[in-house]
Amino acid sequence: MEKETLDPWGTTTVQNYDRLSSEFGIERLKPLIPRFKKPSLHIRRGIDFGHRDLGKILDAIDNNKPFAVMSGIKPTGIFHLGTKMTADDMVFFQSTSPKATVYYCIADIEAYNDNGISLQESSKIAIQNVADILALGLDPDRAVVYKQSEEVRVLQYGMIFSRGVTNNMLRAIYGDRPIGLYLSALVQVADILMPQLPELGGPKPVLVPVGADQDPHIRLARDLATKYHDEFGFIPPSSIYHKLMKSLSGQAKMSKRTITSSFTLGEEPSSAAKKVMAGFTGGRATVEEQRKIGGEADKCPVYDLYLSHFAHEDEYAKRVYDECYGGIRMCGECKSELAKIVKKDLDDHRKRRESYMKDAEELIAKSKSYLGSLAR
Amino acid sequence: MEKETLDPWGTTTVQNYDRLSSEFGIERLKPLIPRFKKPSLHIRRGIDFGHRDLGKILDAIDNNKPFAVMSGIKPTGIFHLGTKMTADDMVFFQSTSPKATVYYCIADIEAYNDNGISLQESSKIAIQNVADILALGLDPDRAVVYKQSEEVRVLQYGMIFSRGVTNNMLRAIYGDRPIGLYLSALVQVADILMPQLPELGGPKPVLVPVGADQDPHIRLARDLATKYHDEFGFIPPSSIYHKLMKSLSGQAKMSKRTITSSFTLGEEPSSAAKKVMAGFTGGRATVEEQRKIGGEADKCPVYDLYLSHFAHEDEYAKRVYDECYGGIRMCGECKSELAKIVKKDLDDHRKRRESYMKDAEELIAKSKSYLGSLAR
Repeated sequence: MEKETLDPWGTTTVQNYDRLSSEFGIERLKPLIPRFKKPSLHIRRGIDFGHRDLGKILDAIDNNKPFAVMSGIKPTGIFHLGTKMTADDMVFFQSTSPKATVYYCIADIEAYNDNGISLQESSKIAIQNVADILALGLDPDRAVVYKQSEEVRVLQYGMIFSRGVTNNMLRAIYGDRPIGLYLSALVQVADILMPQLPELGGPKPVLVPVGADQDPHIRLARDLATKYHDEFGFIPPSSIYHKLMKSLSGQAKMSKRTITSSFTLGEEPSSAAKKVMAGFTGGRATVEEQRKIGGEADKCPVYDLYLSHFAHEDEYAKRVYDECYGGIRMCGECKSELAKIVKKDLDDHRKRRESYMKDAEELIAKSKSYLGSLAR
Repeated sequence: MEKETLDPWGTTTVQNYDRLSSEFGIERLKPLIPRFKKPSLHIRRGIDFGHRDLGKILDAIDNNKPFAVMSGIKPTGIFHLGTKMTADDMVFFQSTSPKATVYYCIADIEAYNDNGISLQESSKIAIQNVADILALGLDPDRAVVYKQSEEVRVLQYGMIFSRGVTNNMLRAIYGDRPIGLYLSALVQVADILMPQLPELGGPKPVLVPVGADQDPHIRLARDLATKYHDEFGFIPPSSIYHKLMKSLSGQAKMSKRTITSSFTLGEEPSSAAKKVMAGFTGGRATVEEQRKIGGEADKCPVYDLYLSHFAHEDEYAKRVYDECYGGIRMCGECKSELAKIVKKDLDDHRKRRESYMKDAEELIAKSKSYLGSLAR
C-alpha cells in the first residue's frame, strides 16, 4: 500500500482519510462532534474529518474565552469550491462564540511564489474574495483582513522564524523545494501565529481551518510555536481539516489547472451546469448493471458536490446517497438534478457577492487602519 | 596558490586584492581616481581598491543627476573600524553632489539571522550608530534611515526576489547556508534596490560602499536587478569596496569575536590605546634587524590603523611608511605615537556622537514618517 502524502503545493490525493491519523498524527474529528451545540454541515457530514488540538477551541467556546479563527486564502481567482469549504468553516467557527475573531489572510505572497500572480493582480481579486466570504456569512465586526505582502508583522516574523528552522527540517516537511516556497511557508507560520502577538491580545487558542493538503504548514507552525514559546508565549495552534474535493474530470483532486475538473463561485451558472453534466460519476458501465448493484456515491465527484455544497438538507443528501446505492437513481438524472441546483446557487451567490463588494473594500480598509494603529 | 574567497558571514581574508579582479570581476579603482575632483582619504590611499560600475555614479555626479548611496549597517554594537570605513564612504559620496541621497539601512534582520541580536536590542544600538555616522559628517537633510524589520518594502521585495532565485544559484554564490542567511541576503538585495522604486523617484544609479567580503550580496543584487529589469526598470547597482582591516591580534581580518583584534569607536580611549600597544606589527625579530632591513608596513595592522583612520594627513601616513621601511621607526615608538592619536580621536568622536544622539532619534523618526507617507 502506498503511503499517503500531503503536499500544499502539489496535487495531493488522499486514498484513506483514516490513515492520516496513523501517518501524520491528525486526529479523527468524530469523537468531538457531540461537543458542538449545532455542528455545521461539514462537521455533521464528515467533510471535516480531522483535527489537531481542537479541544482547546471547544474549551474556549465553552468557557467564553477569546480565540481566533485564521486561514490564509490565496487570491488566485474567484473562490473555487475547496476555498469555499475553508471559508464556510471560518464563518461557522466565528458563529460559535461572541469571543471568536476571524483573521482572513490574503495570501498574496504565496500566490506570487506558488502561482506567479503579481501583488497588483492579487489586490483586485482579493476584494472579490472578501465579498465572497461576506456573502457566505462572515460577520465583518469580528473579522480582520490583511494582505501578507503589506502586513509588516507577518513579513518580519517570517524572517525571524527563518532562523528557527534548519534546511533539513524544511526538507523533511516539504521535500526539496525552491527557497521561495520555503519562505512562503515561513510567512504562513507567521500568519498563523500573528493573532497571538501582544498587540493583538497575546497568547490565545487559534483555529486554522484548511484542506488536508495544508497540514504541513500546521505542523511547521506548531513546531515553531513550541520552539518560540519561551520568547513569545505562543500556544501551538489548533487545526480542523476538510476533505479535498473530487475532480469532475476524474482525477483524484480538483485542480484549477484542469478547467473541466471544477468550477468557481463566479463561473457562469450555465457553464458550471455543463461541467456537472459532463462530469465523471461513480456509476456503473451500463444502466442495467447500475439498477442491479447500485452506483458508488462514495467514489462519485457528483455526489461529492451534493454532499459538500449543494444538498442543503441532510435528508436530501442522504436520499441521493441511498437512491444511488439502491440502484434507483441513474447518473444522468442525478446530474441534471444537481445542475439545476448549481445554477440557482451560483446565481444567488453572485448576486449576494455583488451586493457585498463595497463592504469588502470597507472591511479591508478598516482592517488596515486597525492593524496600522496598533503598537508594535 | 589558494583561491580567494569572499564570505559576508565568515572570516574573509584577502591575500591579494588585485586577484579579486580576475576571480570575481571586481574592477580596479585606480584608473577612475582622476575623475574625482577631491578624492577621499580612502580613495587617495588605495583603501578603497575596487568597484563595479562606478562610472555610472561618476557620470551622475558630472551631469548633476540624482543618485543614491546606500549601505546596510548591522547594529551589532558601536561602530567598529570596518563599519566606520563604510560610513566614511557614505558620507564622502553624499558630499560629491547635491543630488546624492543616502539610504542608511539598519540591518536588524541580518543582525538577528547572523548574530542572534534581537530586534529590540538592535533598535537601541541603531540610535547610537546613526549618531556615529552623523558625527562622521552625514548630512541628515539628504539621508533616509530605516530598519529592515520595519520597512515593508524591503521585506516584501525580499519575498518577491525569493521567487527569482534558485537554490543552486544561492549555493553557488554563498555556499551551503541555513535558509535564514539566504533570506537575509534576499532582503539585502531589496535594500539595495529600494531607492529605485517608483515612489522613491524610480530607476537611478545606486552606489553601495561595502567591505570586499560583501561582494556576494552585490553580485546577487546585480543579477536580480537584471532579471527584474523589464518588470521594475532596475538599473544594476554600482559598488565600491574597501579593504578589510588587519587584525591587531595577528589574524588576517579584524573580528568582533576576538576582543583584542580591534576596538570600536565607543571603546574607552585608554583601553583602545592598550590594544594598540599590545598589537602585532610588521616589525622584525630584533631591533637590530629592523634597523638594518626596515619593517614591513604593508603587513602591519598598526600601520593599517594609521593609513585607514588615524593619520589625518597623507604626508604623515607617507612619513610613517617611509620611516618604517627605512628602519628608522621602531615598533614600540610607532605604537605609542598611534596610541596617543587613537586616544584623542576616540575622545573627540565620543563627544561628537553624544551631541548627535538627539539628531539621530529625529532622523530615524523623520525618515519613518517620510517612508510611511509614500504611496506604495
